[in-house]
Amino acid sequence: MPASRSLDTAPAAGGLAPALAEALRALLGARFSTSLAEREHHGRGESYHASRPPDAVCRAQSTEEVAGIVRLCAEHETPVIAFGAGTSLEGHIAALQGGVSLDLSGMTRILAIRPEDFDATVEAGVTRQQLDAALRDVGLFFPVDPGAECTLGGMAATRASGTNAVRYGTMRENVVTLTVVMADGRIIKTGGRARKSSAGYDLTRLFVGSEGTLGIITEVTLRLHPLPEAVSALVCSFATVAGAVEAVTAVIQCAVPVARVELVDARAIAAVNRHSKLELAETPTLFFELHGSPSEVEQQARTVEGIVGEHGATHLAWATDAEERRRLWRARHNIHYALQAMRPDARIWSTDVCVPISQLAPCLAATQDDIEAASFYIGTVGHVGDGNFHLGLVIDPNSPAELAEAKRLNERLIERAIACDGTCTGEHGIGYGKAQFMEREHGEAVDVMRAIKQALDPLGILNPGKVLPDKLLPD
Amino acid sequence: MPASRSLDTAPAAGGLAPALAEALRALLGARFSTSLAEREHHGRGESYHASRPPDAVCRAQSTEEVAGIVRLCAEHETPVIAFGAGTSLEGHIAALQGGVSLDLSGMTRILAIRPEDFDATVEAGVTRQQLDAALRDVGLFFPVDPGAECTLGGMAATRASGTNAVRYGTMRENVVTLTVVMADGRIIKTGGRARKSSAGYDLTRLFVGSEGTLGIITEVTLRLHPLPEAVSALVCSFATVAGAVEAVTAVIQCAVPVARVELVDARAIAAVNRHSKLELAETPTLFFELHGSPSEVEQQARTVEGIVGEHGATHLAWATDAEERRRLWRARHNIHYALQAMRPDARIWSTDVCVPISQLAPCLAATQDDIEAASFYIGTVGHVGDGNFHLGLVIDPNSPAELAEAKRLNERLIERAIACDGTCTGEHGIGYGKAQFMEREHGEAVDVMRAIKQALDPLGILNPGKVLPDKLLPD
Repeated sequence: MPASRSLDTAPAAGGLAPALAEALRALLGARFSTSLAEREHHGRGESYHASRPPDAVCRAQSTEEVAGIVRLCAEHETPVIAFGAGTSLEGHIAALQGGVSLDLSGMTRILAIRPEDFDATVEAGVTRQQLDAALRDVGLFFPVDPGAECTLGGMAATRASGTNAVRYGTMRENVVTLTVVMADGRIIKTGGRARKSSAGYDLTRLFVGSEGTLGIITEVTLRLHPLPEAVSALVCSFATVAGAVEAVTAVIQCAVPVARVELVDARAIAAVNRHSKLELAETPTLFFELHGSPSEVEQQARTVEGIVGEHGATHLAWATDAEERRRLWRARHNIHYALQAMRPDARIWSTDVCVPISQLAPCLAATQDDIEAASFYIGTVGHVGDGNFHLGLVIDPNSPAELAEAKRLNERLIERAIACDGTCTGEHGIGYGKAQFMEREHGEAVDVMRAIKQALDPLGILNPGKVLPDKLLPD
Repeated sequence: MPASRSLDTAPAAGGLAPALAEALRALLGARFSTSLAEREHHGRGESYHASRPPDAVCRAQSTEEVAGIVRLCAEHETPVIAFGAGTSLEGHIAALQGGVSLDLSGMTRILAIRPEDFDATVEAGVTRQQLDAALRDVGLFFPVDPGAECTLGGMAATRASGTNAVRYGTMRENVVTLTVVMADGRIIKTGGRARKSSAGYDLTRLFVGSEGTLGIITEVTLRLHPLPEAVSALVCSFATVAGAVEAVTAVIQCAVPVARVELVDARAIAAVNRHSKLELAETPTLFFELHGSPSEVEQQARTVEGIVGEHGATHLAWATDAEERRRLWRARHNIHYALQAMRPDARIWSTDVCVPISQLAPCLAATQDDIEAASFYIGTVGHVGDGNFHLGLVIDPNSPAELAEAKRLNERLIERAIACDGTCTGEHGIGYGKAQFMEREHGEAVDVMRAIKQALDPLGILNPGKVLPDKLLPD
């Protein structure tokens, strides 16, 4: 099947078919490039995966231009890999079979903000920070917040989430409708803006998380939420990770509608202190944020304080000042980079399992031995209210021994998560880095996914080698 | 394409291939039936659509049995139509091309209730009332509540919702994972129980709302919610529907997290009074329900009272007594039957558009003339917090003139809804009753849906003629 075409039969890297290159240059002028620097940049995310540069980079400025590029690539059976901000962690943008990187970062128009309907429509290249800025005076916000400065199109394509998901949901819940360019260049809209609809197959949710393998997302309509009247943040320290996790589990099981609850272990705190010039106590720490009316927040705060106290929280500090909170969350969002800075030339291998909340404590406990035994630094952080946590493995990407050790640790962790009805990835996606786990997690359902891929991309040109396992993947 | 196989070439109703009938009888014994009464019952929902009986009825008791039935039907290229409680409103269960009705109502086991993870797993035939009863002592509830006593499998298959959707979401948000029998008899699970996952295509959301055309749902894992500490209900009267709708719009736009807000117009109130022995004022009425802690509910109540007052609400009555509230909501849930009882031998043609909240007032206003001019009784009810409302057309299903008039009214309403970025169906689904509107609503995206259908059901045996438009549909 074309989707799993062998690397051997792929066109040699370094060269598109000359007719295709010519046609793309005619369409895009200077926005078509084959420079090595551009290509290297477009083949690399923010993880340990080596760069796999495309043969060329095409910078699109409109949905019609994306459709034109895809039509040309389809004519030449040439891979097309959508590219947003290049912040992916699982090799999503690697040009495993060469082809064209279709860069959407120039599509930065905010097309509509409709406060009366709590939604906004943006082009795929708008970043969440840009949308944030545009919403400043509207009284609404968009809650999905991965750590990086990523594009909203990329976030939709990878079903991203972040610290607010425990209350506000992920991209799954917060994308209303999409404009998508299909593998043959057709442009479709996946639905209207009504709050609910039973009109046919849920194409919106099918494209959210499909990582550019079923179509290329060019516009996104997003659900906005009212800014909370009152916000409060609580930082509390624990003697052990287990104590912190038990406290979170109890808070969630008491149905406190926390907006955020993040676990950061002692090593990750140490990295944060160094990188963000903070002086947090270097012990397992929970960061809570509570949203609501002043009285609701006060009530939630009392409940949370009571529960964490019962579970041995030692240091409790409330941050009600907006500037202080912003500083804390900025530090939290930068943990990836803080860990990377712990070691020269390091890259982070970030694990990403997510389990039912009742399984979080046992799963993390069973993982502690691996963390202790590792030959490299590991920081643990987690969106623990959702049962999602990351180990940030601070590795030398040029060391085969460290890569092999990281791989084994990751595999054991994923086995553990899947065994308790969890997933190998809560929010980073599959890319090619986790494709090998798809069958373990989904069994025969992977064949159903393959059938859909084959139906919507019969030539296999859309981001080949991603999401679905392929026996010829690079190791 | 087999999915749109002509009615002419379908096997004649009244007869399965003898070898198939024999094999099904061997598999199911007395749970295989060709009796006319059984067949008639299995071809008719609760709407105006005439019964289109299947050739036989198969009552399954397990996922494996469903798989066995589907495998046999696939061998004989015979249609299979999943059947739950038979409460559908758009002809979902009509055997347009004959074949087998696969009745799942005997699959009534509640497989697991996991309060610690806020989820439960049930067989497809469990009704929402049965789940309710099982949750009585757990402190949790399942919020999705269509009016009828329907099965949870059927609710998942039609992406159903109800009065609580404005706060708790629809089946889209409240299904965690599914077990599905595919068109060739393979059994798949669509995911794990983690709160979020980025592991591949969102098959759960693809099957939710696919109306048995892509696979047959046999088990459903559902998200449960904590019972609210305090509940309060407000009933308020308005001089006009427009006034009531403006009040709701203002409440929603002020982001009050109402649990329910239902509009019932004067004629629907009259029907309810008669059917449920109530004495509500026969004017346009809003029913609010508020959930939260006592102080939250009090705060919401003050805000709602203020807003409805500004918009001319005349009669305000609070119902804090649980028994009184139950009586009101039971009456609300029975409106379909109350309207039906307004006229001997009537059936209800229920419209179901849903629009962005900002478009609700203009859309309803533009529809008033049609309501006034109609030759039959029409009651208006709506889950107005979601922008979703129903006109209940009380028609004589044997009158071609009334059917034609209802059809024209419905078409105009749908045009209006689609023109303002809404949908032809907020919660009832497409069946074959609305298939003709799919292209108007979705444009070329319908071809993408067709490609998925073709990929997952190449023989076109799963509920043929539903969801996707077919030029040979009965009128």
